[in-house]
Amino acid sequence: MEITVISVGKINSSWIQEGIQLFESRIKRYIKYSPIIIPDIRNSKSLSKETIKEEEGKLIMENLASSDIVVIMDEKGKEFTSRDFSEWIQKQMVGGRKRLVLVIGGPYGFSKAVADKADYKISLSKMTFTHEMAKLILTEQIYRAMTILRGEPYHHD
Amino acid sequence: MEITVISVGKINSSWIQEGIQLFESRIKRYIKYSPIIIPDIRNSKSLSKETIKEEEGKLIMENLASSDIVVIMDEKGKEFTSRDFSEWIQKQMVGGRKRLVLVIGGPYGFSKAVADKADYKISLSKMTFTHEMAKLILTEQIYRAMTILRGEPYHHD
Repeated sequence: MEITVISVGKINSSWIQEGIQLFESRIKRYIKYSPIIIPDIRNSKSLSKETIKEEEGKLIMENLASSDIVVIMDEKGKEFTSRDFSEWIQKQMVGGRKRLVLVIGGPYGFSKAVADKADYKISLSKMTFTHEMAKLILTEQIYRAMTILRGEPYHHD
Repeated sequence: MEITVISVGKINSSWIQEGIQLFESRIKRYIKYSPIIIPDIRNSKSLSKETIKEEEGKLIMENLASSDIVVIMDEKGKEFTSRDFSEWIQKQMVGGRKRLVLVIGGPYGFSKAVADKADYKISLSKMTFTHEMAKLILTEQIYRAMTILRGEPYHHD
């Protein structure tokens, strides 16, 4: 199985980008991993929140295949402990589907099309994070999950 | 009221340190804020987890005053949304006590003395983070709380 993280909007903070790249390079030691960044919508300041969400949604949908396991990251979704998240990923791995896609939305959430396409809704926290922080936290948790599945000493329960 | 974050162990990743400093400098625009870093325990590799926890606990206790509101950050603690966390901070502010102290433990958790001293146990997430990531996330959430209390546009519900 391959893991893909789709996120909306480029990462503007160089320090967050450095952290994300660090965890991404570590993840790639364990599994095929390919992040996709949906570009920021042009002229978004003149658009309504609904329009931005719809436009982002279209670009996300273009990157999804019908065979994907699609997960949207949403603070109202199901929360996992790090260990449960690792076991959940392992379950997806043995399920035989080719790609697990975790989607981090823009600041206004997901379009109806993306929400309808999602197989799962997962929450990193009840707290709200910027999309940059969410991507950093998610990549660290994917890396942590890989170390848990291999029985490596990075994680302490 | 003053806010203090006590964390155990120095921050080794320069990119996380940059992020923490960014949010700390922003928090200081709103409130008196003073982070305290408990140094790593010496020769910790030759010590048991329990001993490390005890030693860290002693150093944390030395930095607490009887008048403090003490909060330990623990993934099994109470979870807040970002908005509820901001309202909770405001409630502490009007309570008349001088200092709100949020404590991030080491990898093995808190000693009994620190756990007994805590007035509250708050969770950033059910997921486990390194102490470095926890400090980054907590400082971002304190900054976010300040912007919510002032009605500033950083946070989107």
